[in-house]
Amino acid sequence: MTTTAGSTRRIAILAHEKFPDRAKTALGVIRYGGDEIVAVLDRDNAGSSVTDHVSDVRDAPIVDSFAAIDNDVDALLIGIAPIGGGFDESWRDDVETAIRAGCDIIAGLHYFLNEDEELVSLAEEHGVELVDVRKPKDDLTVSQGIADQVDAHVALTVGTDCSVGKMTVALEVVEAAKEAGIDAALIPTGQTGIMIEGWGNPIDRVVSDFTAGAVEEMILDVGDEYDLLVVEGQGTIIHPAYSAVTCGILHGSMAESLILCHVAGREAIHGYEDVSIPSIDTYVELYESLAAPVFDTEIVAGALNTRKLDDDGAQQAVDTYADELGLPATDPVRFDAATIVEGLDL
Amino acid sequence: MTTTAGSTRRIAILAHEKFPDRAKTALGVIRYGGDEIVAVLDRDNAGSSVTDHVSDVRDAPIVDSFAAIDNDVDALLIGIAPIGGGFDESWRDDVETAIRAGCDIIAGLHYFLNEDEELVSLAEEHGVELVDVRKPKDDLTVSQGIADQVDAHVALTVGTDCSVGKMTVALEVVEAAKEAGIDAALIPTGQTGIMIEGWGNPIDRVVSDFTAGAVEEMILDVGDEYDLLVVEGQGTIIHPAYSAVTCGILHGSMAESLILCHVAGREAIHGYEDVSIPSIDTYVELYESLAAPVFDTEIVAGALNTRKLDDDGAQQAVDTYADELGLPATDPVRFDAATIVEGLDL
Repeated sequence: MTTTAGSTRRIAILAHEKFPDRAKTALGVIRYGGDEIVAVLDRDNAGSSVTDHVSDVRDAPIVDSFAAIDNDVDALLIGIAPIGGGFDESWRDDVETAIRAGCDIIAGLHYFLNEDEELVSLAEEHGVELVDVRKPKDDLTVSQGIADQVDAHVALTVGTDCSVGKMTVALEVVEAAKEAGIDAALIPTGQTGIMIEGWGNPIDRVVSDFTAGAVEEMILDVGDEYDLLVVEGQGTIIHPAYSAVTCGILHGSMAESLILCHVAGREAIHGYEDVSIPSIDTYVELYESLAAPVFDTEIVAGALNTRKLDDDGAQQAVDTYADELGLPATDPVRFDAATIVEGLDL
Repeated sequence: MTTTAGSTRRIAILAHEKFPDRAKTALGVIRYGGDEIVAVLDRDNAGSSVTDHVSDVRDAPIVDSFAAIDNDVDALLIGIAPIGGGFDESWRDDVETAIRAGCDIIAGLHYFLNEDEELVSLAEEHGVELVDVRKPKDDLTVSQGIADQVDAHVALTVGTDCSVGKMTVALEVVEAAKEAGIDAALIPTGQTGIMIEGWGNPIDRVVSDFTAGAVEEMILDVGDEYDLLVVEGQGTIIHPAYSAVTCGILHGSMAESLILCHVAGREAIHGYEDVSIPSIDTYVELYESLAAPVFDTEIVAGALNTRKLDDDGAQQAVDTYADELGLPATDPVRFDAATIVEGLDL
């Protein structure tokens, strides 16, 4: 990663034909990022603005192309990903216009901008940077098993499945901790988290032997500067395809506290419908017992994604989840992450 | 991988200054490989022969350089790896002499021969191939969670630590199964296994998201051609650095039977002395419970590495291990892997 945490840039976000519901990265950056949002590019919604579609976020105009932006922009961020993570040729015109206007381009695609000869040569010509956040650094290595030596309390969001909200929960916990006067930071492990924070390792793209090491490296890097680090978890420990990533993050982080993230009502692993979601007790037992030989940890709180429920249903689901866990639980997006911060018992 | 299973080549093995004790790959290929061994290169042992150093293996002369071999050779195999997996410049003369003699070069180093301009251009000139077995294929992808659909019974060697003998056990089980009339094959997941079999995916080098998928792909490829596949396991599920690889192999293989491999007397994770080896029961519980939500499996037998014990001590240690497991156990190198094959209950 070449972008730097803490900088305030003026960014435009490309989200053609997908804003807001299929633009997870765009929405994450708008909701949680520190950059100024100059405009969102979505040719299907041009003329409206962000808050016409989403509440409780910063507003920005939606335009049909980069050329239609009449303010200065420092960077154009690709805020969507087609299935397969390729580069959609319908974006090229906007990307090239942005480069000509002196903008860096930031993407989290499987397709690396830096391997696109046309974009590389145009970027060189205009002195701008192409940032592929999903390309791992070259100097990653194996874990030393020492992430527990940092001063910060390390918490990790673990899940019952993919796409349950582990990144969002981590971000909400960081925010709530800061509001409670705790010096907290996110450890970003996926492309959206990396775009929001401006640094991080894309754990799902590193060499499998370095999975734990790539998490440890980030914790060692900043762990003495904060009181609380919240590691963005990935996948689930029972995922037929992605459990390796989950397991590496668990052991690499050596997190003292685990926050178990779940979606109300989900019954099977997303995309692997033959694999039923087991009991919440099963997850607690698996995460804790798998960590135990390496470091001491426990599930200390639950985060429930209740997006598909109404307010009454959500409160009821959260109460049931808290009962199942025997621990504090909440939906940190709908309600407040303070409950989880209290669960960390700092 | 471009080499093909089943071919019989005439190979020389480079093992300078490390044969036999620090030449795990060389020894594995001599003991279990199907290729004819023309010579071993070790400048410290030149003039002796393989069986002067190791018993129960095929003999071959040990020479000080490739130039000293007076037979035809099809390929030179790098049978050692320095710490870090680099290319030792003291090997270059032998490698270049081999290329000039029309030999393919096969290596499992972190350093890829195909990125060494000098070797690449020499290989092109002489029409030979540089095979980096540790370089993953480009077309790997995520697991579909369907390895359990093949006709073969799939067994997996899992371990209490790294370097306990999971590859050796898998190879011995395949051999014993064949002797019992079962059509069996190894699923190679590491560089030595790949060199022995002439195909396979180097699981520790694949992108973490594809860990399970790279195992599944191999099982789907050959799973209907055999009655038994024995997957070469890696690491241990409680390894501070490598557990991601272990976890991905477990879920990717969907193995019906697990063989728990252990070294008699080992008390801590190799290289991570703060992490004590927990009870054998703990491993059984962890491997089985982690697999359970995805597929049905159980530990069916134990393999104990008793290399450091005398015969009496070994038998006693095996008996104790069998008692702890409540299952058949043996040291398949010192004794016989038939016990384990029986445990598979095919």
